Amino acid sequence: MRGLVDLARLSPSAANRQPLRYILSWRPDKNALIFKHLAWAAYLADWPGPGEGERPSAYIIVLNDTAISKSIDCDHGIAAQTILLGAVEQGLGGCMLAAIQKEGLRADLKIPEQYDILLALALGKPRETITIETVGSEGDIRYWRDGAAVHHVPKRSLDDLILDL
Amino acid sequence: MRGLVDLARLSPSAANRQPLRYILSWRPDKNALIFKHLAWAAYLADWPGPGEGERPSAYIIVLNDTAISKSIDCDHGIAAQTILLGAVEQGLGGCMLAAIQKEGLRADLKIPEQYDILLALALGKPRETITIETVGSEGDIRYWRDGAAVHHVPKRSLDDLILDL
Repeated sequence: MRGLVDLARLSPSAANRQPLRYILSWRPDKNALIFKHLAWAAYLADWPGPGEGERPSAYIIVLNDTAISKSIDCDHGIAAQTILLGAVEQGLGGCMLAAIQKEGLRADLKIPEQYDILLALALGKPRETITIETVGSEGDIRYWRDGAAVHHVPKRSLDDLILDL
Repeated sequence: MRGLVDLARLSPSAANRQPLRYILSWRPDKNALIFKHLAWAAYLADWPGPGEGERPSAYIIVLNDTAISKSIDCDHGIAAQTILLGAVEQGLGGCMLAAIQKEGLRADLKIPEQYDILLALALGKPRETITIETVGSEGDIRYWRDGAAVHHVPKRSLDDLILDL
């Protein structure tokens, strides 16, 4: 996991200020502390989140050190994508979670007020099949699961994303 | 360039809303319109930005469609890093610029008010040598250039980024 953070370390940062800080977790007790403060897959109303045995093996919590930068533009997106691409190279999968009960997580991990909690990156061996589809004409972008536990992710078409200006 | 945007298209997006839109530029006249609204390398006080013949060959302007999402967390960081990593795979280099004279760019490219301007990604064949160093004990994170036009980028050490919490 230090190697994954090292990839983020070498990545671009606004004005090169490098205000991001990271908490690593891979022990079951610390993972459980983190897990209970996360909300999973808001569009899957019938799925309460991963059950015992399919929960993430590790987490990287991404923080902003407000002593360096009062606010963040998109450094955490750069870092998170870098870490997840690195994880895939290692045969892992991952997910960026921003729906975090931050005050609870701050209390349980004893995160000083100096650090804003930005993202939780969940890591582990992927258990599900994921398939990317094109958003239909009705424009519904909600991901969904079929009866065979395949996770379907609708993505807009390239022509919808590129503006002719 | 469409292939680079396609990499971003397949990348994570908060709640899968996919509000980012892209303007592509590779014609010299359009590139020149964009160039004049960008500010370069704030730490290099003696360098006004790339001169004729070393300016970017292309740009991707990253926008937020406010009809889909009023504000953006870090989708644009995810997309920008994905596009630049893809560019490096193609033998190109790039830079993310957030210091943009947005109203001037909006007027020159006729960007509708519906779209917030987030980033300009500059792309081209790299001309400079870049070297990454460790931030010294004085904590100075400003990049600098030496007499041989080598661009030095100080990065904080991995131990400074990982909190023992």
